[in-house]
Amino acid sequence: MKLEEFYKKNKLKEGNLIEITFENEKISGTIIPTNSKMLTLKFSTGYNAGFDIKKIKNVKILGQSKSVGKIEKQKIKKNPNLPTISLLHTGGTIASRVDYRTGGVYASFDGDDIATMFPELIKTTNINSILVSNMMSEDMNSEHYKKIVNAIEKETKNKIKGIIIGHGTDTLGYSSAYLSFALENCPLPVILVGAQRSSDRGSSDAAMNLVCAAEFIKKTNFKGVAICMHNSTNDDYCAILPATKTRKIHSSRRDAFKTINDTPIALINYKTKEIKWIKNKKKFENQNGKFLIKNKFEKKVGLLKMHPGINEKLIDFYKKEKYKGLIIEGTGLGHTPTGEKEVFIKKIKDLIKSGCIVAMTSQCINGRVNPRVYSNARILSNLGVIYCEDMLPETAFVKLAWLLGNYSKKEAEELLAKNLREEISDFSRVNVFEH
Amino acid sequence: MKLEEFYKKNKLKEGNLIEITFENEKISGTIIPTNSKMLTLKFSTGYNAGFDIKKIKNVKILGQSKSVGKIEKQKIKKNPNLPTISLLHTGGTIASRVDYRTGGVYASFDGDDIATMFPELIKTTNINSILVSNMMSEDMNSEHYKKIVNAIEKETKNKIKGIIIGHGTDTLGYSSAYLSFALENCPLPVILVGAQRSSDRGSSDAAMNLVCAAEFIKKTNFKGVAICMHNSTNDDYCAILPATKTRKIHSSRRDAFKTINDTPIALINYKTKEIKWIKNKKKFENQNGKFLIKNKFEKKVGLLKMHPGINEKLIDFYKKEKYKGLIIEGTGLGHTPTGEKEVFIKKIKDLIKSGCIVAMTSQCINGRVNPRVYSNARILSNLGVIYCEDMLPETAFVKLAWLLGNYSKKEAEELLAKNLREEISDFSRVNVFEH
Repeated sequence: MKLEEFYKKNKLKEGNLIEITFENEKISGTIIPTNSKMLTLKFSTGYNAGFDIKKIKNVKILGQSKSVGKIEKQKIKKNPNLPTISLLHTGGTIASRVDYRTGGVYASFDGDDIATMFPELIKTTNINSILVSNMMSEDMNSEHYKKIVNAIEKETKNKIKGIIIGHGTDTLGYSSAYLSFALENCPLPVILVGAQRSSDRGSSDAAMNLVCAAEFIKKTNFKGVAICMHNSTNDDYCAILPATKTRKIHSSRRDAFKTINDTPIALINYKTKEIKWIKNKKKFENQNGKFLIKNKFEKKVGLLKMHPGINEKLIDFYKKEKYKGLIIEGTGLGHTPTGEKEVFIKKIKDLIKSGCIVAMTSQCINGRVNPRVYSNARILSNLGVIYCEDMLPETAFVKLAWLLGNYSKKEAEELLAKNLREEISDFSRVNVFEH
Repeated sequence: MKLEEFYKKNKLKEGNLIEITFENEKISGTIIPTNSKMLTLKFSTGYNAGFDIKKIKNVKILGQSKSVGKIEKQKIKKNPNLPTISLLHTGGTIASRVDYRTGGVYASFDGDDIATMFPELIKTTNINSILVSNMMSEDMNSEHYKKIVNAIEKETKNKIKGIIIGHGTDTLGYSSAYLSFALENCPLPVILVGAQRSSDRGSSDAAMNLVCAAEFIKKTNFKGVAICMHNSTNDDYCAILPATKTRKIHSSRRDAFKTINDTPIALINYKTKEIKWIKNKKKFENQNGKFLIKNKFEKKVGLLKMHPGINEKLIDFYKKEKYKGLIIEGTGLGHTPTGEKEVFIKKIKDLIKSGCIVAMTSQCINGRVNPRVYSNARILSNLGVIYCEDMLPETAFVKLAWLLGNYSKKEAEELLAKNLREEISDFSRVNVFEH
């Protein structure tokens, strides 16, 4: 049955507030226009989702809700006098008109869609719209990372001012770290943009984040990878955030992304479009090294958070599965339990002996790990556990997988706790013991 | 060889700045007085640590450092006119004169030690000093939790105003959550206190945190479990923090403990000793329910953080090990990868079928999980994954282990996402979608 037939059979119209019943749940929302085969509902929270009509057991009309606009495409022409930005779509809330459960089939991110969704963006910019993937970011993995890097490489050969990547927010921080490592001496700006509210909601942050990213690309000579998201819950500033030191620290707020152990790079005033640099802009604008793409990722790398009573057999798991790297998210300054008769320490020793690089970060998130303060950490450090300074656990995980993909084990060990892409702050600059 | 002989042989004096060489490392620091068998050094960071002299290969005197005081015991008498507080010692930096690697042998936490270490504390309070354990908190597990609860139960039978628990900071948040669940309708204040700098450092927070906890106990009729730590990096206020909604979010700062999705309960002005309530004090002072101790903890409960490309066999691990509970630290609003051919989802389904309770929290830390926004989470929720609202992952882990220890599986499932000890905020009060 097609969606039109489903509408007809159940006497539904776009804009109806309905309740649909599945085998195990009831869901209510307002029918919104869609190009997909799925029944698409907007919830009272403002989020949209698509539903397979074959699985719907019953439909009840709760009432005529406020009317919703049709998707009317605007035809746009490129203006040779405007700068061009390539917009790579990977999915996520920022593109949430589309139903993700259908795969890429119904996605049609051409320039016309962008014009409809973000008219402000196309007024001052030519947009090359490229579909890389179409997924919620919790499903992103290294195969998708590679695709994104390949798409970026292709775009760098075109006459463009920069690249914006639309990305789901769940794992945006992991992806930004990967791109940062994979694109050595990136010759143009690559700005990841997400949204915490879908673009068809009144409170959506999608348009502002995109427009600010485009303004930053147009008005500066920034080179490298960064993130552009709301700086606060107000619609006043967006922040350009460092790709390796930023984390999603709120599940729903629009200013969910914050730098950890670092500061934003710059702010963009949404009203005046002025750029206010926080970090020294020369550092980002004067970068002229040879552009190298290192696009390999070792899949046998894990990230394991410690907790009281954690089972030491988990360490065996990584040994049995022949892991090449493991980032531990320890407690405090970088600790694991010792375990009864030091069994936990022994398991880590065995894992290292098996050839796996084991490294330490902190579940405190903020601050630096330090193996010199308490004896437990000194033992781990002496076994060969690499202490990752003030690197985020997520960035350390991505970095180790990237290092093991592109370098020898020895090089990976040497480079892990060395600063390559601003993922480690200078200890003398941010002295954690001075607080 | 005894420490005195080691000093003599190497011509060392207390106060000497020395460098010691081990098989794989060199460490330098100032020799400080100790009652232990270990050579005890103060590092330039201000932390102390003890070293086994048998393992030292070489010693080099770098110079005479500033002189350090001797530990001189003060003899104190209890004053019947002062209120009495029981101080339970479990270890950690707050008691860091003691060397932890030696076990409990050298610990001597009697009232005289307290007088020496915290003279301000004993001026206005009689202290019952009780040694429960002596360890860094990364080694704490449910057996220690039970001991602490037993010690608290014993103390509640004495004529005391309240209890302070000295605790290592690494897992203080996990312990405070456990005590909160285990002590139902606790009839007196139980305040956990840690320190980020050892008590013999100039910048130590130990004394102020202890004194503020004692002031709060003496000046209020607070009942229940809470944490007392520095409110900022200044020495102006300590905060009384809710036991189930507080997390160590910095590896080294003195104000490392912050409430998540909540506010502090009260502030204590260190100078004036005034109490400023932030939450409604009636709620904490008028609690009169029957005091029940529920002191069981199911060890087969895990906490697993998601990351891109996470191995689905980790879910099998918990099934094979016959786990009864697993808290997932998902991405964003509470997501896991779907996995190729939905394998990740299927593994979770199998784990639930095996009898394990699986529940969801967010690695964003701040904010609420919600299974109704995106289809991926809806699938998990329909499989029976319990979404833990705005509970901290660490609190959810402790709560599930406590529920499975003290209730039936069915009751545990029902109670996990229900608010029992202020671990879940009222949704209408903290509406995550309003930001």
